[in-house]
Amino acid sequence: MSRQPDRVTFTLPEWLVEYAECWRPSGLAEERMRFVIGASERNVREKTGGPFAAAVFEHESGAMVALGVNLVVSQQSSVLQAEMVALMLAQQRLHTYDLGVAGIPSHELVTSCEPCAMCLGAIPWSGVRYLVAGAAGADAGSIGFDEGVKPENWIREHESRGIRVQTGVCREDARAVLRLYRQTGGCIYNSKKS
Amino acid sequence: MSRQPDRVTFTLPEWLVEYAECWRPSGLAEERMRFVIGASERNVREKTGGPFAAAVFEHESGAMVALGVNLVVSQQSSVLQAEMVALMLAQQRLHTYDLGVAGIPSHELVTSCEPCAMCLGAIPWSGVRYLVAGAAGADAGSIGFDEGVKPENWIREHESRGIRVQTGVCREDARAVLRLYRQTGGCIYNSKKS
Repeated sequence: MSRQPDRVTFTLPEWLVEYAECWRPSGLAEERMRFVIGASERNVREKTGGPFAAAVFEHESGAMVALGVNLVVSQQSSVLQAEMVALMLAQQRLHTYDLGVAGIPSHELVTSCEPCAMCLGAIPWSGVRYLVAGAAGADAGSIGFDEGVKPENWIREHESRGIRVQTGVCREDARAVLRLYRQTGGCIYNSKKS
Repeated sequence: MSRQPDRVTFTLPEWLVEYAECWRPSGLAEERMRFVIGASERNVREKTGGPFAAAVFEHESGAMVALGVNLVVSQQSSVLQAEMVALMLAQQRLHTYDLGVAGIPSHELVTSCEPCAMCLGAIPWSGVRYLVAGAAGADAGSIGFDEGVKPENWIREHESRGIRVQTGVCREDARAVLRLYRQTGGCIYNSKKS
């Protein structure tokens, strides 16, 4: 096989960078969530990925640090789920692997759907201190995604690591995007067991 | 805040690309593991990251598709643990988000230490059909890393998703690298609770 490349790059859809510009800071969880759900819907309509979006905000001010969407199929990488994209972008922008480090504002991850097992595991490492989720994991499961095995007590475990968790914010709006994805024939990208 | 960038890039250490060139395909799990552990040790000595490495091999032939090391501190990204780097590299090289897709060889992830909760969650999405681990999660915990909450029955759950799991391969060699990291003052990069 040819020499291993010395870097990995992934690119965001052009519309996403423009869309992120439209955010006006808000202290309300519902407003942050609606903006994130709007990105998930746009991702479906633009056919740039799965029906999921996530953003990192400064918890107090509502300033948005990074907005990610699911890029699994478009970038051919199973890692590039919305929460992972948002966390990688936020850490790149702030030049820190710990968004909870002293001396910077506390950060909040707002995700249009409860994180899968991978993204759940990524959250404590990332340093965010707040997690706000829209649709339930079962809602993603109902359109065919295999969210993996999550600890039953994941909310309590995250809270014990200093992460406040809020679920079900604008759940119906988020579910509507999942349904739209299924109705428009979106790819359910679980690994195919042969 | 300035405009959100339109891409994320991370770079591998120069030594890693050279080291990967030295692999000669082997059918033995122990030989694959020793090569991976060698990369983890080199990562510590070169001070390019944490004491962990992982590689994706073609399971049958032993050809190596991608070799990753932990880059959390050097690239300032909590996502860039060794398994994630190896999976992203492998999928980028093969242009697929599913390393288990029909028509290509079955793939195996060999990791110098049992995956943390994030990396465990990433494995079913990735399409690898075999997981081989060296040191135990408790070994990483013993030098201070918080591996997160893993389902108690994670091996059975992965097997039920068609992933064969083998643990404890060359465990003592892998543990020695963890000890070396601690002895040389390596950064334990858990998020700091303030």
